[in-house]
Amino acid sequence: MDLTQLRAAFCGRLHTEAGEMAPFLTDWRGKWTGRAIAVAQPDTAADVAAVLRWCHLHRVPVVPQGGNTGLSGGATPDTSGQALLLSLARLKRVRAVDPLNHTLEVEAGVTLQQVQDAAQEAGCLFPMSLAAEGSCTIGGNLATNAGGVQVLRYGNARELCLGLEVVTAEGELWNGLRGLRKDNTGYDLRDLFIGSEGTLGVITAAVLKLFPMPAARVAAFVAVATPEQAVGLLQLAQARLGPGLSAFELMSDTCIGLVEKHVDAARLPLAERSPWYVLLEVSQHGAGGQDEAHALAALEALLEIALDRGLATDAALSASLAQFRALWALREDISESQGAEGKTIKHDISLPISHIADFIATTDAAIAREFPGLRLVVFGHLGDGNLHYNLSPPAERSRPEDAAAFVALEGPLNRLVHDAVSARGGSISAEHGLGVLRRDESARYKSPIELKLMRAIKAALDPLNLMNPGKLLDLEAKETPR
Amino acid sequence: MDLTQLRAAFCGRLHTEAGEMAPFLTDWRGKWTGRAIAVAQPDTAADVAAVLRWCHLHRVPVVPQGGNTGLSGGATPDTSGQALLLSLARLKRVRAVDPLNHTLEVEAGVTLQQVQDAAQEAGCLFPMSLAAEGSCTIGGNLATNAGGVQVLRYGNARELCLGLEVVTAEGELWNGLRGLRKDNTGYDLRDLFIGSEGTLGVITAAVLKLFPMPAARVAAFVAVATPEQAVGLLQLAQARLGPGLSAFELMSDTCIGLVEKHVDAARLPLAERSPWYVLLEVSQHGAGGQDEAHALAALEALLEIALDRGLATDAALSASLAQFRALWALREDISESQGAEGKTIKHDISLPISHIADFIATTDAAIAREFPGLRLVVFGHLGDGNLHYNLSPPAERSRPEDAAAFVALEGPLNRLVHDAVSARGGSISAEHGLGVLRRDESARYKSPIELKLMRAIKAALDPLNLMNPGKLLDLEAKETPR
Repeated sequence: MDLTQLRAAFCGRLHTEAGEMAPFLTDWRGKWTGRAIAVAQPDTAADVAAVLRWCHLHRVPVVPQGGNTGLSGGATPDTSGQALLLSLARLKRVRAVDPLNHTLEVEAGVTLQQVQDAAQEAGCLFPMSLAAEGSCTIGGNLATNAGGVQVLRYGNARELCLGLEVVTAEGELWNGLRGLRKDNTGYDLRDLFIGSEGTLGVITAAVLKLFPMPAARVAAFVAVATPEQAVGLLQLAQARLGPGLSAFELMSDTCIGLVEKHVDAARLPLAERSPWYVLLEVSQHGAGGQDEAHALAALEALLEIALDRGLATDAALSASLAQFRALWALREDISESQGAEGKTIKHDISLPISHIADFIATTDAAIAREFPGLRLVVFGHLGDGNLHYNLSPPAERSRPEDAAAFVALEGPLNRLVHDAVSARGGSISAEHGLGVLRRDESARYKSPIELKLMRAIKAALDPLNLMNPGKLLDLEAKETPR
Repeated sequence: MDLTQLRAAFCGRLHTEAGEMAPFLTDWRGKWTGRAIAVAQPDTAADVAAVLRWCHLHRVPVVPQGGNTGLSGGATPDTSGQALLLSLARLKRVRAVDPLNHTLEVEAGVTLQQVQDAAQEAGCLFPMSLAAEGSCTIGGNLATNAGGVQVLRYGNARELCLGLEVVTAEGELWNGLRGLRKDNTGYDLRDLFIGSEGTLGVITAAVLKLFPMPAARVAAFVAVATPEQAVGLLQLAQARLGPGLSAFELMSDTCIGLVEKHVDAARLPLAERSPWYVLLEVSQHGAGGQDEAHALAALEALLEIALDRGLATDAALSASLAQFRALWALREDISESQGAEGKTIKHDISLPISHIADFIATTDAAIAREFPGLRLVVFGHLGDGNLHYNLSPPAERSRPEDAAAFVALEGPLNRLVHDAVSARGGSISAEHGLGVLRRDESARYKSPIELKLMRAIKAALDPLNLMNPGKLLDLEAKETPR
């Protein structure tokens, strides 16, 4: 394909050498590898629009990419080599900070960490926080409606965004960069583009919500006997702490065992082991200099009642910033520690919180029965109803030569887990999106009418199917009514 | 038109007598009156679907209506007499309460007050609160993305809804009744239907978010010299109270003067008058029995600093529930008191909070210059950037025979106010929606690309233009690029 016109059409970089393109054509975990006619890295939103106009004119599919940290293959092109890889990495400006309005306008290629830093410089908090924050971009966070560890208090990416700038499939620039908490003047285009994984248009900038910085944050690491107890503790904590409860994470003893095994500094902060643990965090405002003391007092009072009512068996509180970080590290290091044990099979699911305990008990038992010996590595954002329901092979079958046998279980395990999720009104992709990994699996559980509505919207905004084709939704598949 | 088939197709009521239909064909303020072939009141969502299938088959336009309390004419049919008025008032079931999941599933015709009551019975809070709550329905609240006085802390209707059930233009029932905080499995259909004013489909039920009940609520009525001071006080209150700040309302002395004139019990709780006042509310959790004392202490500490820094000139705190209610009544009675002064011209606008003070100063001055003598009745949800920027005729020209001359000013006043809003990146309909009242006015300020995207979505989901035609969006108008 002749790229001369494209090269002349925009400011930025255009890579066509295999070596230059390679890092963009494989996801960071190396699960998916594709091909592309070129990799375009425009400098500005206007340049993105120019690239998309060229693509529209020449019917070239476009695969947008931010930090390339996704977990569902949404930013990797297919192997046809027909598509243009559109990297937003050079759209890096923090355009405006408005501390009075508690808003920040940033371009899509700014990393989440840089957004957090810009907020902090303005004396504010941008609360989204997740493992990839050093390299993931805010454009990707919005395109996939990312979650993280502070959703309980502050919401997903969707709830943290007031306005968007988007380039459409035809290469037109929509300026929806409103810094307004209230605006009822038409259809909610913003939320339609958020979470659409680049299949309806390309997000080039956003107006984000900032929050007052909490004066103090304290954490407790709590031993609970069962997930049911953890849910009871969550209820109690919500009732007593209200919006002061800023995180509520569940993890099994298996998870903590893996962290202790693979992370030198890690140690259980409790005298005795427990089948399950909860990490809960309290953020405090408004106690005028006494914030840390107030937060600790509120947490101590809560835990006393919890121990009294049999909703917890033991607890450790963070008495310093170092302890606060050490408690959080136990939770944050689970994923990498599991990875150090060899291949993994992961499920990013959500459920009504009232169904979580039953789901875990029933599904754990079914897996023990049908797939004996597999290790369950279950943890997640219990306060949001979101579990990472993961599996590792038995310790004695974790050698490289055992990998294929374990990976072959993925299909039947997905079926078992996702059927159990669907039966309880849950979601099979809580925060990671569909990409190619969960596209067909999701369609299996959605109603024909929902798929029809989604296809109608896709056809309306991208009639030529050029925007990240094949991701999120399979336009060819025809469902039969169930 | 032969209605025999329609009558046989669903359970519920079908009114065709003029007297029976009349209450549905005029909005509650009597601003708009239309005609209809009939008024259908189906009993269930399946009956709504049956009615819409009949309408689709016979190409009959549908005007959905909840409590008929809207302010923009969105629920009144036009005068052609071609449309069916679809009242959701008989869909009145509270289908399920899940206190563990903090969710409530209700049908569209349940009033907001009944939703609040059902939440309270479950020991929880449904925070949406607005003047019409006794008669407006949750279906209408969602269809218009209603706001109210607790948006600062809890968000608009959109943020309070997790899942929807919708009947499409073809009469198919979409079950999107998910009780999940996280679900990234496709396009955000929920938020597309929310705020679409019945032009894309009919909401028949919803899963709503509940919240832990605050242990204490206290309020302060604060004198401030200028809107700029009020914005400074807001900043200080947000920084110190974080999510404990649950309302922040601004009102001018003119507003309070009208309330004192028309409401017997009303009296200013301060020794001296001030050009402006702020009503702020603190909600407290987590102080274990000391909540009221903690909230008052936090509020007192805040006000001391505010007085010290010149961000306030005087303040009164609510020391009892009766005082709390009396302070709130001063704010809530403004709209009715203004109405008692004769005709009104109203603007429901929002702005970035950093532009509010400048907007008020500049626009007040322009109105005084161009329309001398008009009374400015300015109040609103300052914490959300939302002002009700209202006008009344001069006191000496408020007789019925002066009404026509005042009403004739509406067009030029709208232009002046809305131009000033638009120039500052604001919205000309913050919480009341577009309906017919603001449809063309909104199109005037939107970009051609945004209108094109909205029309593409309308055409995709309602290709025959049968769903509340003529509301929100004019399909006939063709914009010329600006």
